[in-house]
Amino acid sequence: MTETAVSPLDRHDLRARVSAALTAFLDRQELLLRQIDADLLEPGAALREFLDGGKRMRPAFCYWGWRAAGGAAAAEADGGAAPEHAMLEQAALVASASLELLQASALIHDDYMDGSDTRRGKPAVHKRFEALHAAGGWEGPAARFGAAAAILLGDITLTWCDEMFTRSGFDAVRIHAARPVFDLMRSEVMAGQYLDVLAQSRGLSVATPGEILERAETVIRFKSAKYTIERPLQLGAALATGDGDENGPVNAALSAYGLPLGEAFQLRDDVLGVFGDPAATGKPAGDDLREGKQTVLVALAAARADGARLKLLREGLGDAGLDPAGVAELQAVIVDTGALDAVERRIEERTRLALEALERAGFDDEAREVLAGLAVAATSRQG
Amino acid sequence: MTETAVSPLDRHDLRARVSAALTAFLDRQELLLRQIDADLLEPGAALREFLDGGKRMRPAFCYWGWRAAGGAAAAEADGGAAPEHAMLEQAALVASASLELLQASALIHDDYMDGSDTRRGKPAVHKRFEALHAAGGWEGPAARFGAAAAILLGDITLTWCDEMFTRSGFDAVRIHAARPVFDLMRSEVMAGQYLDVLAQSRGLSVATPGEILERAETVIRFKSAKYTIERPLQLGAALATGDGDENGPVNAALSAYGLPLGEAFQLRDDVLGVFGDPAATGKPAGDDLREGKQTVLVALAAARADGARLKLLREGLGDAGLDPAGVAELQAVIVDTGALDAVERRIEERTRLALEALERAGFDDEAREVLAGLAVAATSRQG
Repeated sequence: MTETAVSPLDRHDLRARVSAALTAFLDRQELLLRQIDADLLEPGAALREFLDGGKRMRPAFCYWGWRAAGGAAAAEADGGAAPEHAMLEQAALVASASLELLQASALIHDDYMDGSDTRRGKPAVHKRFEALHAAGGWEGPAARFGAAAAILLGDITLTWCDEMFTRSGFDAVRIHAARPVFDLMRSEVMAGQYLDVLAQSRGLSVATPGEILERAETVIRFKSAKYTIERPLQLGAALATGDGDENGPVNAALSAYGLPLGEAFQLRDDVLGVFGDPAATGKPAGDDLREGKQTVLVALAAARADGARLKLLREGLGDAGLDPAGVAELQAVIVDTGALDAVERRIEERTRLALEALERAGFDDEAREVLAGLAVAATSRQG
Repeated sequence: MTETAVSPLDRHDLRARVSAALTAFLDRQELLLRQIDADLLEPGAALREFLDGGKRMRPAFCYWGWRAAGGAAAAEADGGAAPEHAMLEQAALVASASLELLQASALIHDDYMDGSDTRRGKPAVHKRFEALHAAGGWEGPAARFGAAAAILLGDITLTWCDEMFTRSGFDAVRIHAARPVFDLMRSEVMAGQYLDVLAQSRGLSVATPGEILERAETVIRFKSAKYTIERPLQLGAALATGDGDENGPVNAALSAYGLPLGEAFQLRDDVLGVFGDPAATGKPAGDDLREGKQTVLVALAAARADGARLKLLREGLGDAGLDPAGVAELQAVIVDTGALDAVERRIEERTRLALEALERAGFDDEAREVLAGLAVAATSRQG
């Protein structure tokens, strides 16, 4: 990501505070694990390392959704006492940080499902436990143990997300009011992931170009735009206002900013998945092509490709053995069909729509400024 | 299970009402899935079919924990109005029913991790989606699609458990008070499952008989005794009293009954896993032996076996290709070493301890009668 002097992700030291909140939560959970059995310290450590890193994008949107909806002002007005304000500020931070656990759970399961062996340059969780099995010379297939450990670690992390969210420090009634957004966010991302896997399995052959594009747009909407940006913003807002109504004025304004921005964010991700620099993305070049991801980028290329190019695309996409020359060939198809340009234009347009909505929204100056900065950070990043 | 005229599981028509509550919840979730994409109706239907059956053991313990802790009496006293009572009764029922979603999630993931291809005589979820892929002639390995679908369906079901629990109808403060037990229950069962998988991987070779038995006892405690009986009871009690303190008098009484009973329940399961009649258990004979489950039954046999028998046990346990003669050979080792008798004695003793604790507990007559009936049902069942 393009780092300015202070990234909008670091305003009010947010990233460091999110990390500290996660550490405090994991310290508490580790006590529980230790009481059950010392053999649980290994999965505990694996989760801790997994969580040590990342842009903390979803916590940032949740926290700034809380601010945009007047969370900090309400904290000040609510009795006006400084300790009360600090308590609510901390609760907003902890609730925001809890989203990293949902994301960690999704990534741990994703990496296993996709057969991705590395994550941020380190072994994926299933590979880490596979190695533990192999090193111990244990019985049965090491890969099966790795799979089971990754599935169970993803499961416990998923439940810890709502445990941390619930115990963030807001009162029970406020948490309850925010639950509809919280629940929707979780169902939507998992539904989106299923649709993604389904599209990948169906491939390019059994649908019209229009259907392929429509499916890719549905996946982007639920798996990314809503999950990464719109719902975290609305969750923060619900915690600020106690109003979980999706159609309330604050939520509508956050949607008008968040949904197009979320699409632009994922479109950027799709471009990086095909054209990104491995040094910046932490993934092999052309990884999405090998995995056969049915992105909007690919759908547009398929819709525009002539017979020979379409054949190349159909044959190469999802071929796990695709070599650098094969990747370059598919990249050329995506460029030559104009699909890359079209996606870049979509990113620009969606980002512009988001920023215009932000101008109209009437949030306070700081929230508006940071949300504008986050929009740029989310869509112009390199990795 | 031995069915008497009315099984204690069916008192107050509980099983039918739990099923109705699950159906109502799934109807609502189906609307959401349908709004996202019609392709989600298939996983929705898969979950519905998966949930259509089962003894509803955990909901029964949760509901009767609520009754034992005075939930129904409090509902009557609380204003005394009949509608209020009916509302709390229904909330207790819905909260209890939500535990079936946790169980479904665990089983969907378990079946995949264990490579179990059937569940209650029907294809396991990963096999169902594998077949969907194969029937469609889609791209990539069908088994990989089946795995991804099962992992994602288990994930969404896991989040739906706490969604259903939270929306059961109790007020936010009451739900909040019960959350510590709810959270503990989830962490404990997943921790127990990990320890189970770990023990299976380590096998019988790399530990002393004492270590093997100790590990098996830890697994039984967390994966089964607490998860299936103690925590559901305490969850119901916390919903009745608003007091989630594990060490409060009601919770202590429920533990004194629930923990030994939970151990006996799992020991019965272990015996059925080796000696059960496939027609009653719905699983192939000797299934636990093929999977290499490190149960207390197996641990006791290993501790008592002489050289030749220990060799048989070590070699046969976890051998996926074990034929009926091999199963019979291992069964003979478990009988001849006295391990089976020892486990039957443990089941008797734990059940007696549970019933004695129940007598001392001072619950009302109906709760005591049903909990006594559940103890017999849980430990003398055939499948």
